[in-house]
Amino acid sequence: MIKITLPDGSVKEFEANSTPMDVAMSISQGLARNVISANFNGRKVETTTPLTTDGDLVLYTWNDDEGKKAFWHSTSHIMAQAIEELYPGVNLTIGPAIDNGFYYDVDFGEHSFSEKDFPKIEARMLEIARGKHDFKLRDVSKADALNYYKEQNNDFKVELIENLTDGDITFCDHDTFTDLCRGGHIPNTGIVKAVKLLSVAGAYWRGDENKPQLTRVYGISFPKQKDLKEYLELLEEAKKRDHRKLGKELELFTFSPKVGQGLPLWLPKGAALRERLENFLKKAQKKAGYEQVVSPHIGQKELYVTSGHYAKYGEDSFQPIHTPREDEEFLLKPMNCPHHCEIYNSRPWSYKELPKRYAEFGTVYRYEQSGELHGLTRVRGFTQDDAHIFCTPEQLDEEFKNVIDLVLYVFGSLGFENFTAQVSLRDPENPDKYIGSAENWEKAENAILNAAKEKGLNYVVETGEAAFYGPKLDFMVKDALGRSWQLGTIQVDYNLPERFDLNYTGSDDKLHRPVMIHRAPFGSMERFVAILLEHTGGNFPLWLMPEQAIILSISEKYENYAEKVLNSLENNEIRALVDNRNETIGKKIREAEMNKIPYMIIVGENEEKENTISVRKHGGEDIGSIGIEDFVNLINSEINRTLKSF
Amino acid sequence: MIKITLPDGSVKEFEANSTPMDVAMSISQGLARNVISANFNGRKVETTTPLTTDGDLVLYTWNDDEGKKAFWHSTSHIMAQAIEELYPGVNLTIGPAIDNGFYYDVDFGEHSFSEKDFPKIEARMLEIARGKHDFKLRDVSKADALNYYKEQNNDFKVELIENLTDGDITFCDHDTFTDLCRGGHIPNTGIVKAVKLLSVAGAYWRGDENKPQLTRVYGISFPKQKDLKEYLELLEEAKKRDHRKLGKELELFTFSPKVGQGLPLWLPKGAALRERLENFLKKAQKKAGYEQVVSPHIGQKELYVTSGHYAKYGEDSFQPIHTPREDEEFLLKPMNCPHHCEIYNSRPWSYKELPKRYAEFGTVYRYEQSGELHGLTRVRGFTQDDAHIFCTPEQLDEEFKNVIDLVLYVFGSLGFENFTAQVSLRDPENPDKYIGSAENWEKAENAILNAAKEKGLNYVVETGEAAFYGPKLDFMVKDALGRSWQLGTIQVDYNLPERFDLNYTGSDDKLHRPVMIHRAPFGSMERFVAILLEHTGGNFPLWLMPEQAIILSISEKYENYAEKVLNSLENNEIRALVDNRNETIGKKIREAEMNKIPYMIIVGENEEKENTISVRKHGGEDIGSIGIEDFVNLINSEINRTLKSF
Repeated sequence: MIKITLPDGSVKEFEANSTPMDVAMSISQGLARNVISANFNGRKVETTTPLTTDGDLVLYTWNDDEGKKAFWHSTSHIMAQAIEELYPGVNLTIGPAIDNGFYYDVDFGEHSFSEKDFPKIEARMLEIARGKHDFKLRDVSKADALNYYKEQNNDFKVELIENLTDGDITFCDHDTFTDLCRGGHIPNTGIVKAVKLLSVAGAYWRGDENKPQLTRVYGISFPKQKDLKEYLELLEEAKKRDHRKLGKELELFTFSPKVGQGLPLWLPKGAALRERLENFLKKAQKKAGYEQVVSPHIGQKELYVTSGHYAKYGEDSFQPIHTPREDEEFLLKPMNCPHHCEIYNSRPWSYKELPKRYAEFGTVYRYEQSGELHGLTRVRGFTQDDAHIFCTPEQLDEEFKNVIDLVLYVFGSLGFENFTAQVSLRDPENPDKYIGSAENWEKAENAILNAAKEKGLNYVVETGEAAFYGPKLDFMVKDALGRSWQLGTIQVDYNLPERFDLNYTGSDDKLHRPVMIHRAPFGSMERFVAILLEHTGGNFPLWLMPEQAIILSISEKYENYAEKVLNSLENNEIRALVDNRNETIGKKIREAEMNKIPYMIIVGENEEKENTISVRKHGGEDIGSIGIEDFVNLINSEINRTLKSF
Repeated sequence: MIKITLPDGSVKEFEANSTPMDVAMSISQGLARNVISANFNGRKVETTTPLTTDGDLVLYTWNDDEGKKAFWHSTSHIMAQAIEELYPGVNLTIGPAIDNGFYYDVDFGEHSFSEKDFPKIEARMLEIARGKHDFKLRDVSKADALNYYKEQNNDFKVELIENLTDGDITFCDHDTFTDLCRGGHIPNTGIVKAVKLLSVAGAYWRGDENKPQLTRVYGISFPKQKDLKEYLELLEEAKKRDHRKLGKELELFTFSPKVGQGLPLWLPKGAALRERLENFLKKAQKKAGYEQVVSPHIGQKELYVTSGHYAKYGEDSFQPIHTPREDEEFLLKPMNCPHHCEIYNSRPWSYKELPKRYAEFGTVYRYEQSGELHGLTRVRGFTQDDAHIFCTPEQLDEEFKNVIDLVLYVFGSLGFENFTAQVSLRDPENPDKYIGSAENWEKAENAILNAAKEKGLNYVVETGEAAFYGPKLDFMVKDALGRSWQLGTIQVDYNLPERFDLNYTGSDDKLHRPVMIHRAPFGSMERFVAILLEHTGGNFPLWLMPEQAIILSISEKYENYAEKVLNSLENNEIRALVDNRNETIGKKIREAEMNKIPYMIIVGENEEKENTISVRKHGGEDIGSIGIEDFVNLINSEINRTLKSF
């Protein structure tokens, strides 16, 4: 008999060689129907793997990320089988699951292959799925494994196997198909009810451009047809919300090949939006005791050698800038922290004056390969909403809580309601890996954990994930389409205070090292605006909208009244504009809808006579005829609903 | 007989060989006593030079810049004589007048020389002056001139003479001293009543670091002892107001050798001051129809080749930035205009949409030799309050007037009341030097002249001083110490629209070139803050002060009341802080004075009881006991006196 411990802590006894599926069955038939993958003692196993020792077992269904991974990885086997059948002689290489689906890198040899080939592969995949073939993992000796693929002339698999240890090699069989595989499959092909191949791209073998080029076929699969339909709709919606498309339509930003790729130019509406975001954060930061500073966009190379950033970014980023007549080397700044350390260092400090909280919307430059650039999410120059807090170790607790409050305020005001946090702690088995005393680490980690608990965050703890210079807390938000983005980070740092020899005089009249906290609720203005665009589809919270209302005159006769209304709104600090063009009201409404203006104000004969306005919301809701003052109140109360004061 | 025309247009007849002094004498004895230099037909002459033809004569006194120049240049002869007597064997080189005084570059040979030697030279100079020796200019043949200095082994003067034309060489004699000199002297040494040597510095012969190093001795002189006294007081005051000193004392900015020289770090108070200035201008600009944009701090080298800035700044500024893996070259931007041209170019425009006015507080980087760096006035990175107006030629007139209004608003709000303007026009004799049609130049020049006239500017016109790409208007302000600074420039540009192929569709449905206006009322934030510091001595206009009031508690007992007062002030948007330290009220007042805080609010028993505050102004004026509300009104009315709305 073996003892199996389940995630809820309950322990059950089973006969040796029972499988995860047997365990599921013992719990409930429903679970057994849904279980598609498992983990035993921290290792992926098949649902059919015999369990021979005591241990911890986790059972996964489609609702778990691990379940989805097994599902998609298994589907990549099915796709590989279909491709091998339809394109004889192709060489398969690797086929992993990814965040959304799976891919397989294939050497198609003589065959040509394009998206046109998708339907016949999908059809054959569904046929194989319907066969309900079991996935069976079996041990293979290194010699047998090599022989199998040498016979097929598949140099890729041979290379993979050569790097594996004999005794540690498994093949997976289903139907007529066999693949080198480490496991992690669903019970059988029959669970896969819907498949969709998504795209095809070039990929180098092992990501090395000097190695053969392969064809990467992307796909996704689902246990229900309905899930696939929903997913495709989501993809369609994501395309509509692509921030590059919206950014152009709403005239927020542009790129110029002459200025250079990855270097956004913010157009007036985008610059104003960005400034509103900055002012919003500045205001909250002022209340929270931050002070703005301004530092240059370059610094001497030595500054970054001191900080350690040169070792990290130097060779791989923008190269040093020389001066024409002196022996000097500057770097575009990849980080603001060294500058802020030097500001801190510009005078001595007493413990009574700490914490110092220096904030700067600092634009930094980091080289990215042109192929990796993407709209505003991957750029070569971006503005961090950066701040560095210099405090005593005793103040960490309080400071961390305050920063979390600020981050939650930012998320709340911008409509991100769905987020989680990750706390990264040091690896207790490798204490030498870290800088700073064990005592201080203890303090900092407790500060973070306490703060996360006290603020009611939904967080996971990742032991061993801390940077060598300090523990941290990262926020992940889910956008309206369910996609996860990393936003906001709070990071303790024992390293830079050491490297820059930062000090303060303690109550004991001796010099001490301050602790540093790096934090950026937005992350970067560029990336944040991109995410906000995709999250809201351009329908920003009202307080942030470039234009909050547009006044549409029914005809030129009401031009003056339209201007009068505009004037009243502007006096009430509502951002509005007038459309007095000689166009039909229908056309004016359609264009205002396209421009995502939240409120349309229609003015004609009745309105002028009664000194009212007719209001229509973006999306179609008719508010009807109201007084201007009522409208101002309406706008302000909507703003106050999302934009609380900090 | 010859006819002499005077500046007032009057013409008088004199015998041939009359001197300017004779002419002065014929006008009045008073003038004759005061005239110290003259100009005949556009050339400097001595007051003793015989006039042999008809011509225009200008007579200068100490009150004219030209008079001062002659005075100081003549004093440099006196100093040279004194030095030659006291340090036998020295070699003299050149000794011009400068804006404030004169210098002489001397090769002291074996002699050592330092500021300690000043008193004995000054004493000897005054002795020479009292001798009332005439300055006498005489013609010398090139051969004689060369011989004279060869005998003295003075290679410097020999080199100078070798570059002169025979027949065009003059020596000036006074007392026992002779110098190679082109003229421009006062009548005799006796007019010099006060001398002061100011400093000593190294200087290379002809400014070339490969040539011998000389000793530059700076000095100044005056016709009255009282003038010297006033000048030295001004110097003392200027030292106190030195923005580098004040910037440190008021904690506005700092420099770090690690970050790099010439790259200011703005401390919290400085950054807040700067932000207030920016917001002040942004607000006015918004009303004037400007739109903010944001552009990166680098651009591809090609961008600046297109704009022509690479030809101007390229070799001589920060060198190109390379990327690690792609064949790209970027430059730190020396100017924002190319970026703004690309923003304009990001979509097509109709004449109905112009003017477009793009504004940006854009930080630019230009290399300066480290020896030339000076506080915030000469830096390597600075933020321009830049804007570019793209308009039709017909709109230039209106736009120019609007820009002048904005500049005058800025000067008025910041206490610069004493300023002049210079209009730079093209040289009508060299029409080929300029880009853009004659018709457009005509329009632009008229626009500037009309605007300057209509706005009542005190301006001078400099023909031939326009840049090749357009005419311009520069503002010069005089600060509280009477020093002139160039601030604010408005510049028409026909060149960049051509180079960037900028277009708009006219009412004729054809493409036209817009005209561009560059303008920056502050010039740069760094330089402007420096000038403002020196102008105000740190006593900024109240609206701009980092702290407007400080609350000083008489003792700890009134801490709570002090906090209550602070709270009231903050609710009324008055920037205040509390000094609750356990120090005497006297010490607190002294420190507040040093920190230049405009209002000191003293709170003790009476104040708390009566719910009032006792107010004392910076500088000592006692306002007495008033209510908090009265104080708020006092502050607001003072602010409204300087800061009008635009």
